[in-house]
Amino acid sequence: MTPTEFLAALLPARLIPGESGAAYAPANIALAKYWGKRDRALNLPVNGSLSISLGTLGTHTTIRAAANDRITLNGTDAAADSTLHRRTFAYIDLWRRGAAQPLHVETTNTIPTAAGLASSASGFAALARALARYWQLDLPEGDLSALARLGSGSAARSLWHGFVKWERGTRDDGRDSIAAPIASDWQELRIALVEIDSGAKKTASGDGMNHTTATSPLYAAWPATAQADLAAIEAAIHARDFSALGSVAEANALAMHATMLAARPALCYLQAQTLTTLHRLWQARAEGLEIYATIDAGPNVKILCHARDEAAVRALFPQALWVNPFQS
Amino acid sequence: MTPTEFLAALLPARLIPGESGAAYAPANIALAKYWGKRDRALNLPVNGSLSISLGTLGTHTTIRAAANDRITLNGTDAAADSTLHRRTFAYIDLWRRGAAQPLHVETTNTIPTAAGLASSASGFAALARALARYWQLDLPEGDLSALARLGSGSAARSLWHGFVKWERGTRDDGRDSIAAPIASDWQELRIALVEIDSGAKKTASGDGMNHTTATSPLYAAWPATAQADLAAIEAAIHARDFSALGSVAEANALAMHATMLAARPALCYLQAQTLTTLHRLWQARAEGLEIYATIDAGPNVKILCHARDEAAVRALFPQALWVNPFQS
Repeated sequence: MTPTEFLAALLPARLIPGESGAAYAPANIALAKYWGKRDRALNLPVNGSLSISLGTLGTHTTIRAAANDRITLNGTDAAADSTLHRRTFAYIDLWRRGAAQPLHVETTNTIPTAAGLASSASGFAALARALARYWQLDLPEGDLSALARLGSGSAARSLWHGFVKWERGTRDDGRDSIAAPIASDWQELRIALVEIDSGAKKTASGDGMNHTTATSPLYAAWPATAQADLAAIEAAIHARDFSALGSVAEANALAMHATMLAARPALCYLQAQTLTTLHRLWQARAEGLEIYATIDAGPNVKILCHARDEAAVRALFPQALWVNPFQS
Repeated sequence: MTPTEFLAALLPARLIPGESGAAYAPANIALAKYWGKRDRALNLPVNGSLSISLGTLGTHTTIRAAANDRITLNGTDAAADSTLHRRTFAYIDLWRRGAAQPLHVETTNTIPTAAGLASSASGFAALARALARYWQLDLPEGDLSALARLGSGSAARSLWHGFVKWERGTRDDGRDSIAAPIASDWQELRIALVEIDSGAKKTASGDGMNHTTATSPLYAAWPATAQADLAAIEAAIHARDFSALGSVAEANALAMHATMLAARPALCYLQAQTLTTLHRLWQARAEGLEIYATIDAGPNVKILCHARDEAAVRALFPQALWVNPFQS
């Protein structure tokens, strides 16, 4: 099934615009990583994943009718030949299916550059929800997750606050490969974002994923590991077991990077400063501070800790940006 | 089978000493790594491995009768309760089998600290050969390799110059898990040793191996990968195909480190400076310089290059120590 066919099956034949559609979506970091596609066009994953959303760090997007397709990011219009413009309207074209409905997408990221976070997850989640609102569609949340996923895999998880689980699913059309929030209110959980490098990655994570699945001899062991880690993290959330949550999340992230390091040729998003940060964290943990790391397909380190240890972690990593994901 | 039983089966009932026994063994670096034991007491490997010996960097050892067990390393006597003394004479006890034959082991390492190389491989290889000469034993080379292996796994490969292959073997007693040199005279091959850290490792490689095999979910894919890499490297040697040799050796080393990174908890011998060196090497290779890296269970990087590129590699890594493994 193609994305075009998927949208045609999901949406009404004719889209009726309202005046505008606005939505906010938080960024998210995966505790059980999405790594590997079983369908590249539909962004269907090899394994399920589980994330924590980052509260007020995310993307606000508003859709309005316009004379021509136009996208404004943080107050500045993107050029028509920019990656942002092309990728955004290629995605919107899936919804419009040839209808002449030029749009102005006004989007604001509240993710500071220093956070070292990708914005594609919150970007496509906010865009999908804003488009649904603009066209006055009353879509089930699961369908919205599938629609966000077509823009960027991890966007499937960025539609809600708190913990979110994205089911692998088994259907070829991906209707069951959708995310949903996990009921939880874990006020003591803190995330410290340690930026190593805010520059653009040499290898986009989708390309890295495909290269790894195609060439890494260790990838064969990933899918089962990922599913087991996902189950362990979900159980840790329900039990509010921080040690289990942190240790499995860290091990899962490092296993993902291990599959890349074993790709041929190797794919290494980790930089020297990433290892300096990891070794410092491990040393502190050996000395009794219970902190854990997770790392996405990039060099930046995200630290998980308990609120009671915030001062100690701030002393170790003074440059970190702090998130309380359950702060209302 | 225990090491004691193995020695009893291999050696004559009574050892008759000569005046002295002397031997030299080169250090070696594995191009196809030994990682995982199927028998910890006998150091029987999960997979075969293949190394290149480092010419004049190695260990000279002489054995003589003495009043008491004594080991001198680089001119200084080691204390009776030192690790070196205990480990050496525990090994020699396997040979002596209770006979009262106190020995003086005089050993000199020609491996500079700055080379970032372990000395246990050349140390036990030289010791095994020197002991065999001291006791006037005319052992087949394969038996000597098995005897060296009992001291340290990779010592099985350090008895000869040039490329050496250590067969995995299938026997429980390890008589067929022995190394032998591969006929080759590859004058253009160069090795540049980049020292990152000469300090003692926090985790001995044997312990790291056991932790990885026991806990890393990615280790399951290692044995078959290692055997395939070994075959590819052996073929590259016969074809004198530097690109194949280097690229497979690098991928094999990184796959080994990947299995450790995925261990639970992670085992990471790589330091920040290791990654700085790797990224610099990869950048240079992307720009056309054909160089490859291999890394043992430690932070130091060994670079493989062709003699024609030596000047360019010296410019990139001025601190490297150079080895021409086939220089006579």
